[in-house]
Amino acid sequence: MIIDEGLELLTEEESAKLLASERVGRVGITIGALPAIFPVNYAVIDGAIVFRTSPGSKMSAAAAGAVVAFEVDNYHLSDRTGWSVLVVGRSEVVHDLHTTFKVLAAALQPLADGKRTTIVRIEPAFISGRRIVHEADPAAG
Amino acid sequence: MIIDEGLELLTEEESAKLLASERVGRVGITIGALPAIFPVNYAVIDGAIVFRTSPGSKMSAAAAGAVVAFEVDNYHLSDRTGWSVLVVGRSEVVHDLHTTFKVLAAALQPLADGKRTTIVRIEPAFISGRRIVHEADPAAG
Repeated sequence: MIIDEGLELLTEEESAKLLASERVGRVGITIGALPAIFPVNYAVIDGAIVFRTSPGSKMSAAAAGAVVAFEVDNYHLSDRTGWSVLVVGRSEVVHDLHTTFKVLAAALQPLADGKRTTIVRIEPAFISGRRIVHEADPAAG
Repeated sequence: MIIDEGLELLTEEESAKLLASERVGRVGITIGALPAIFPVNYAVIDGAIVFRTSPGSKMSAAAAGAVVAFEVDNYHLSDRTGWSVLVVGRSEVVHDLHTTFKVLAAALQPLADGKRTTIVRIEPAFISGRRIVHEADPAAG
């Protein structure tokens, strides 16, 4: 186990498992040369991150074909535990019916109302994860 | 109230208030020409976002003087509610004692162990926020 500054570096397998365990993550994109981060609710389908957005939105334009970051985390302040996973990969707007059917089958419903009929897919090129460990943790031994 | 695709656009005042109400947020930076998002625990001091990181870390290098994104959100999947706030601003490593004392006084302790003695400050240039509203909400009327 590699521990760096109180953070255990997770394997790709552990990171992928945690990525698949959550439903809200954040996409890091560039809009008008400025960085931006937007939360989305997502699913992992065939190893790729998939979420829905509105046609014509800044998100759909910025995410089409760009290399983006995707982050998901889960922290508990009460006992100072938690983890985060970071994915970097190219995003694309999904046009094939195969993926579309899978998205519908996965019941990937946006939390917010509105016509989020554009499906964006991020194929992970890199995935990494970190988990907080404290010296007193038995797991950190 | 402006509602766009099921999201209420919050005022700067509302967004600033929500920003100050949380303790974990995410910084969007660029490392080696690739986008990255890292969670940090932070405080709002004198209107600026302040967090601690390790000297010599990728974060401290990438954040020094760069224009970065900072996002905080809070979602409840059970009733499909939640909000997010996005800040864009220039980051800087804090060297003045005045801010350093305020950070220590604010008891801004990183969740993870390790020598996070570098203090990074993000001065918001833009702040915006969105809150999910559903048609059935009385507040959405």
